Amino acid sequence: MDDLTALVRAFAEERDWQQFHTPKNLAMALAGEVGELVAEFQWLTPEQAATVMDDPEAGARVRAEIGDVMIYLTRLADVLGIDLTEAAVAKLAEVSVRYPAGEVRGSAAKR
Amino acid sequence: MDDLTALVRAFAEERDWQQFHTPKNLAMALAGEVGELVAEFQWLTPEQAATVMDDPEAGARVRAEIGDVMIYLTRLADVLGIDLTEAAVAKLAEVSVRYPAGEVRGSAAKR
Amino acid sequence: MDDLTALVRAFAEERDWQQFHTPKNLAMALAGEVGELVAEFQWLTPEQAATVMDDPEAGARVRAEIGDVMIYLTRLADVLGIDLTEAAVAKLAEVSVRYPAGEVRGSAAKR
Amino acid sequence: MDDLTALVRAFAEERDWQQFHTPKNLAMALAGEVGELVAEFQWLTPEQAATVMDDPEAGARVRAEIGDVMIYLTRLADVLGIDLTEAAVAKLAEVSVRYPAGEVRGSAAKR
Repeated sequence: MDDLTALVRAFAEERDWQQFHTPKNLAMALAGEVGELVAEFQWLTPEQAATVMDDPEAGARVRAEIGDVMIYLTRLADVLGIDLTEAAVAKLAEVSVRYPAGEVRGSAAKR
Repeated sequence: MDDLTALVRAFAEERDWQQFHTPKNLAMALAGEVGELVAEFQWLTPEQAATVMDDPEAGARVRAEIGDVMIYLTRLADVLGIDLTEAAVAKLAEVSVRYPAGEVRGSAAKR
Repeated sequence: MDDLTALVRAFAEERDWQQFHTPKNLAMALAGEVGELVAEFQWLTPEQAATVMDDPEAGARVRAEIGDVMIYLTRLADVLGIDLTEAAVAKLAEVSVRYPAGEVRGSAAKR
Repeated sequence: MDDLTALVRAFAEERDWQQFHTPKNLAMALAGEVGELVAEFQWLTPEQAATVMDDPEAGARVRAEIGDVMIYLTRLADVLGIDLTEAAVAKLAEVSVRYPAGEVRGSAAKR
């Protein structure tokens, strides 16, 4: 993770793109990339979506879109001074309490 | 990263949520969480957005939303058998070639 | 449509919210609301999603989210000076040419 | 609005695309199109975004993306049996009560 953060930061700085990489702009870029990722799945049946990585072309597109999403998420977290893994672990701890395994097993109901 | 993937996977399995965690559903959940993250920035001026982490309440909300996005992205990549860091590095290599630092410095124009 | 545009505009002006309703901010707000709409469907099976309006509570939430999306889309179009219906009809004409009914029947393949 | 709904429905039926136009899939398609719309604004300054329609090329792209979003929103509402304008007006009435003009003037704070 630290390596990826450093890589993405260097990529931006070498291009003098820090001026564009404001939190607002990066949040928008992230939404744009997630839109492209969702679009890869939109017309697939659940069964087709489950095996999308078996298709070389569609699989490569999905992998590339996941990469794009991760790049912008990493960059946004860096610009905000947030540790991505720590933020995820902290949130996971919080939802683990809100959704105790013994009470919510097999249910997707929101709490 | 591997630890986070394992943590999120265990969280899902303990709740018997694998049935909900299909690629289509996880892509939708990711879009939903990114929507919440974007909403944190929507009415802020660029200046307010740049210092959002200085505000304890807004900063905590942004950190939690970033955590949510990372959780679903990690889970989606796991379900698809994609290494998140590798996918990001591969994509970064690709855009580095398409946007050579010497040619695009200071420009946000799309190629 | 013209009536809705006028209603939404009056709603914003009465609250002196024109200052927040810039194209960038409204595009973000739209993304946020679409995220909430998508979230209503994320854990539903295709079958459950197809009958979501039969459930009074879920149906009311979906209707409210659709209303939110339409409000921000109407406002964004108004601020940009775009006629929403005309833009949709023009785009539909364009895709009708790109996807001739006789050639693409029953196929979701992208062109 | 009724005309647009009928146009979009005919477009789908002529191509035998009803099978793809489930609520889940259409919500995903809507998210994808909103992502493309957001991407048009992501690197623009607020000032550039405010005059985007003065640029023939960018303006045409924004208009086309707005058209796409409207097409999928219209189709989703049709499939769900929701009147788009009524849903927007009903939601506007609700937020008008929650955000009384006299109390929230000039403030973007959430209630």
